[in-house]
Amino acid sequence: MAGNTLGTLFTVTTAGESHGPALVAIVDGCPPGLALSAADLQLDLDRRKPGTSRHTTQRQEPDEVEILSGVFEGRTTGCPIGLLIRNTDQKSKDYSAIKDLFRPAHADYTYHHKYGIRDYRGGGRSSARETAMRVAAGAIARKYLASQGITVRGYMSQLGPIEIPFKNWEAVSQNAFFSADPDKVPELEAYMDQLRRDQDSVGARITVIAEGVPPGLGEPVFDRLDAELAYALMNINAVKGVEIGAGFASVSQRGTEHRDELTPEGFVSNHAGGVLGGISSGQPIVAHLALKPTSSITTPGRSIDTAGNPVEVITKGRHDPCVGIRATPIAEAMMAMVLMDHLLRHRAQNADVQVDTPVLGQL
Amino acid sequence: MAGNTLGTLFTVTTAGESHGPALVAIVDGCPPGLALSAADLQLDLDRRKPGTSRHTTQRQEPDEVEILSGVFEGRTTGCPIGLLIRNTDQKSKDYSAIKDLFRPAHADYTYHHKYGIRDYRGGGRSSARETAMRVAAGAIARKYLASQGITVRGYMSQLGPIEIPFKNWEAVSQNAFFSADPDKVPELEAYMDQLRRDQDSVGARITVIAEGVPPGLGEPVFDRLDAELAYALMNINAVKGVEIGAGFASVSQRGTEHRDELTPEGFVSNHAGGVLGGISSGQPIVAHLALKPTSSITTPGRSIDTAGNPVEVITKGRHDPCVGIRATPIAEAMMAMVLMDHLLRHRAQNADVQVDTPVLGQL
Amino acid sequence: MAGNTLGTLFTVTTAGESHGPALVAIVDGCPPGLALSAADLQLDLDRRKPGTSRHTTQRQEPDEVEILSGVFEGRTTGCPIGLLIRNTDQKSKDYSAIKDLFRPAHADYTYHHKYGIRDYRGGGRSSARETAMRVAAGAIARKYLASQGITVRGYMSQLGPIEIPFKNWEAVSQNAFFSADPDKVPELEAYMDQLRRDQDSVGARITVIAEGVPPGLGEPVFDRLDAELAYALMNINAVKGVEIGAGFASVSQRGTEHRDELTPEGFVSNHAGGVLGGISSGQPIVAHLALKPTSSITTPGRSIDTAGNPVEVITKGRHDPCVGIRATPIAEAMMAMVLMDHLLRHRAQNADVQVDTPVLGQL
Amino acid sequence: MAGNTLGTLFTVTTAGESHGPALVAIVDGCPPGLALSAADLQLDLDRRKPGTSRHTTQRQEPDEVEILSGVFEGRTTGCPIGLLIRNTDQKSKDYSAIKDLFRPAHADYTYHHKYGIRDYRGGGRSSARETAMRVAAGAIARKYLASQGITVRGYMSQLGPIEIPFKNWEAVSQNAFFSADPDKVPELEAYMDQLRRDQDSVGARITVIAEGVPPGLGEPVFDRLDAELAYALMNINAVKGVEIGAGFASVSQRGTEHRDELTPEGFVSNHAGGVLGGISSGQPIVAHLALKPTSSITTPGRSIDTAGNPVEVITKGRHDPCVGIRATPIAEAMMAMVLMDHLLRHRAQNADVQVDTPVLGQL
Repeated sequence: MAGNTLGTLFTVTTAGESHGPALVAIVDGCPPGLALSAADLQLDLDRRKPGTSRHTTQRQEPDEVEILSGVFEGRTTGCPIGLLIRNTDQKSKDYSAIKDLFRPAHADYTYHHKYGIRDYRGGGRSSARETAMRVAAGAIARKYLASQGITVRGYMSQLGPIEIPFKNWEAVSQNAFFSADPDKVPELEAYMDQLRRDQDSVGARITVIAEGVPPGLGEPVFDRLDAELAYALMNINAVKGVEIGAGFASVSQRGTEHRDELTPEGFVSNHAGGVLGGISSGQPIVAHLALKPTSSITTPGRSIDTAGNPVEVITKGRHDPCVGIRATPIAEAMMAMVLMDHLLRHRAQNADVQVDTPVLGQL
Repeated sequence: MAGNTLGTLFTVTTAGESHGPALVAIVDGCPPGLALSAADLQLDLDRRKPGTSRHTTQRQEPDEVEILSGVFEGRTTGCPIGLLIRNTDQKSKDYSAIKDLFRPAHADYTYHHKYGIRDYRGGGRSSARETAMRVAAGAIARKYLASQGITVRGYMSQLGPIEIPFKNWEAVSQNAFFSADPDKVPELEAYMDQLRRDQDSVGARITVIAEGVPPGLGEPVFDRLDAELAYALMNINAVKGVEIGAGFASVSQRGTEHRDELTPEGFVSNHAGGVLGGISSGQPIVAHLALKPTSSITTPGRSIDTAGNPVEVITKGRHDPCVGIRATPIAEAMMAMVLMDHLLRHRAQNADVQVDTPVLGQL
Repeated sequence: MAGNTLGTLFTVTTAGESHGPALVAIVDGCPPGLALSAADLQLDLDRRKPGTSRHTTQRQEPDEVEILSGVFEGRTTGCPIGLLIRNTDQKSKDYSAIKDLFRPAHADYTYHHKYGIRDYRGGGRSSARETAMRVAAGAIARKYLASQGITVRGYMSQLGPIEIPFKNWEAVSQNAFFSADPDKVPELEAYMDQLRRDQDSVGARITVIAEGVPPGLGEPVFDRLDAELAYALMNINAVKGVEIGAGFASVSQRGTEHRDELTPEGFVSNHAGGVLGGISSGQPIVAHLALKPTSSITTPGRSIDTAGNPVEVITKGRHDPCVGIRATPIAEAMMAMVLMDHLLRHRAQNADVQVDTPVLGQL
Repeated sequence: MAGNTLGTLFTVTTAGESHGPALVAIVDGCPPGLALSAADLQLDLDRRKPGTSRHTTQRQEPDEVEILSGVFEGRTTGCPIGLLIRNTDQKSKDYSAIKDLFRPAHADYTYHHKYGIRDYRGGGRSSARETAMRVAAGAIARKYLASQGITVRGYMSQLGPIEIPFKNWEAVSQNAFFSADPDKVPELEAYMDQLRRDQDSVGARITVIAEGVPPGLGEPVFDRLDAELAYALMNINAVKGVEIGAGFASVSQRGTEHRDELTPEGFVSNHAGGVLGGISSGQPIVAHLALKPTSSITTPGRSIDTAGNPVEVITKGRHDPCVGIRATPIAEAMMAMVLMDHLLRHRAQNADVQVDTPVLGQL
């Protein structure tokens, strides 16, 4: 309950700091019998990995994951799955300069007040490096969900001021930005190159979509599926907003416009983003998240030190000028873990339920 | 874990349907010694109560709460506080027409698939009537927080297309809209009157702010304070989006603009909304939520019945044309319960922490 | 997490004090579609009810339970079930004498130090009166379990020095002691009559057995079925010990004696009490519990008051000279709730598991 | 919630099988600032380690623990502590013979039915090897508790038919049996030597005592301190019974005998075992546990194979003829983790409580 475990039935507990010996996770509650190997996890880890293009941090981490338990003869046993990733490319001396001061918009100041002590190297526990373990755990969820016909995919829908329309899923894996529009890539590259020259950073918007989710997932009052997604996505470093379906656009919508009518052929629209009354409707689950610009920039900023004196801060080290670029696999992982958890929760209580009403698709 | 309990250490469990005999809640984890009476809860309940203006549902519910336990001689004992509100103005016959069909954008279809059986009267468990109990429980949290110097207040910041600027807190209690700008009220009233004539509904945006929160609340990785707030607020009926601080505006912000610099006199801005790395910074906690337009409108809409046949639906009964109007006290309650929970969680682990660094205010 | 909720998926949260307005409970996670009425709960409540023989407290409580939610047209809906029992026969003036002192072996001293304030009337929250709600909630679990072929039954196996052998289940409901041996009843009555004349109290041993439990319930390492039973049974007021199967007798057993051999016809013995490696084996689940003699006796005892001065205490009021006499329905309820919870947990993770190995019975 | 996490605020999650690559644990919720190194954990691990005398299994495991996170410059940071122990001395070929059959009184049969698949090597997850991680995690709890003046110590109080009286704590570390009576050691050695010749095993009774526990730990109704201890101790492999204080002896006690009277100088007795109404009284917390004889013996036994055919089983491999011999450090670890958890829970809710009543000691 100290905030390092996600989920109720499918639980993921992580530990590890950016510059400590290793990242570790325990994934509990995976059903037995799922074919699983480290290679399955590595696929997603490589998508999140730093240093794969000039637009992300140049830290070189192989992020090679080892499965320590819970898999026997290539299948999950139902027992907890231990995961280990050794840190290899820590350059901790980069960070000694920030030992006694607080980088603006980082967690330095809040960790200091909360714990009185902090591993300042590379952000320690507050570093997004921790999300490597979420991606690894999420890959387990994604593989199980796939066996149930459920896919979770994401893409970048906005980089700074540039909106990126959805064209097709194939494009996403073919550029460094997770752009679903291949034609936008040159513009994104040019923007990022200028941003680096400006010694600045920028925010991004990511969209994640789950398809094949059966109706019925989510709990009615406090563990609504949309609330659990909001929780999971807001738990990603740098996220400042989450929308389900129409999101903030629904503020100025009218009821006649927003409501998704039902016909025997399917739902005629999906402003709800696949969730009604906190429970999945069978339509695609659609979520958007806003990531702030990272504060690790070399443009000097004002701050104070631990004694309260004014200081000027320049964040050196190796950083992502847009943390949103690598956020898509993390967002997919978070959504997958939430869906996995609720799939199990739904089975627990409602295993006996049978209705004759047809399940509607999306028109 | 079936989704009717909120919180980890300060927990609120609710039960009750819109047209059942009663709503009930058990509030657990409140520290002992807090002066508390039913009147304290009634204050907030009356702010949420239906039927107080022509702009909300005309259902007449006194929403009178009885404290069943956990209070002795006017003070909390540390034992669980049982709360009871009897339903009095159910007009259940209104609803028999919708017994075998699904109102668009309601939870009818999803409850049906999840449970195979549902109390269709007034939405049953999915009705926002359940939030009365959250407001009552939230009042306990708010009273305790007040004793620690923490206030939680909200206002409506947008009604449909009309943006409502913040002028002052005093205005909020003096109009039916929780508008912090008294000059906007006539425009809001005119808009709502036209909306009723149009037999339509509209969305809204609410802003909630907590002041006096000490730095250190929130957990670092999965139970971040902002994530818990997103979860809590998205758990309110009709909410489709949540922002912390700059929210979606941070997508197009640059790092030099977004980062809140620190000076010995205080933070120079609050784009973060009072949360850094998932932990409160001592600045005001600022959250925004988007509520969709209710789907309970008398303009006919297409749907299907439980056998899958097409039907036309007109939602009769007594409904709010803008559910956002009564949402402010609910949002305050949710934020208060989250803060209360994290105040206790923080104490548990970090009771011994002492630092000399001054706590910054907001410039 | 303040200790008033039992269970993980089938959860029971209770509130209420001995002399407050009411007892209340919220039962969450019951599968939808179970036929349920207040009369189902009343049956078990009446078995636990005080004042039904001269051997228990003379407090007269009808213990009439009202279902507030979660049941629609005679069936559970999958939504939380609210339960209410009004207290009617409080004689609180009996207790003013003990307001500022600590009855030996009661919770007075520990509540005082924990909370600084306590509802001293009738023990407040620490009174076994709270267990009425467990019996009501347990009745829901028992009804669902019965629909799955699982029965939970208990009997008194020892009263003070008198061991009571198991003869048959029919006898249990035909005497005030829950004795499974009708021939022992006169001896028990005589013992109790003498005990009252001695102004003393005595302990008891209860045995609870579940039959029809399928193999596979329980989790492997920390939520073992036997551990969860030990937890649940030790949570009953006055319980000081719990055994599963051979219990403490296994200390002096040898492996060749203790191990329950398997044959194609079934297990040849059941020293394990139906649990192997923390997981049910399909054999009957057998648990024993030790209840201490109540400390509410009229024989004076030494104690101190809240200022630390020595005092002499005589507990007046209406008390059970052997709290074990009414403990059987409570123990059944606790075991039923644990089994119910683990039935749901097992389904969540292992819904897909199929093995060809036959399930063994008990020879 | 799949049963591999212990605790509410101080949580310990473990993973790993007897013959897999490694054991791993994540300890969350430890307060920041505690001086901690791997050597602190190694001390207790070495006490549990196999192969240190001829009376335990001859498997040679160095059980060397590595701290992966949560400690910075020799102090805990408040972030989760990752622990790793590599398995080194697996002789998995020993186990292929039992791949398709069920050893009597082992978890083979129940795991098979629960999961449909199991790592049969050395018992896999059901092996007591997993408890190494509990001892490591428990050492963290013990070190923190020691800083608060709380000590947790245990000893063997019975080996098969031989009762072992308590003489002094110093003796415990000076013999292989954790006997608190040095004079009993020769008798214990002779008994164990004969047992090996008999190719049999035997049970044991362990007593664990915590001193210095302040009054107030434990929750009133469902998370009573004694219930949590019963849960934790029953979660140890082979445990079949748990007693608090007088335990089963209280069945035949009278109230005048059992109740621990209070005087200004202290409690006059401790039949309660330090817990009243589920809450610590400030007296020593006393628990006893019964361990069954291991079923891994070379004397042949009847069983069935996975197809249901009768087979004869001889358990080879390297086993403890009395698993109770190495159980003392495990029981201490479990008690320590429960106390640690409740210390944090108590602080969360009751940080403000102050009473003038003196805390009584034990006469």
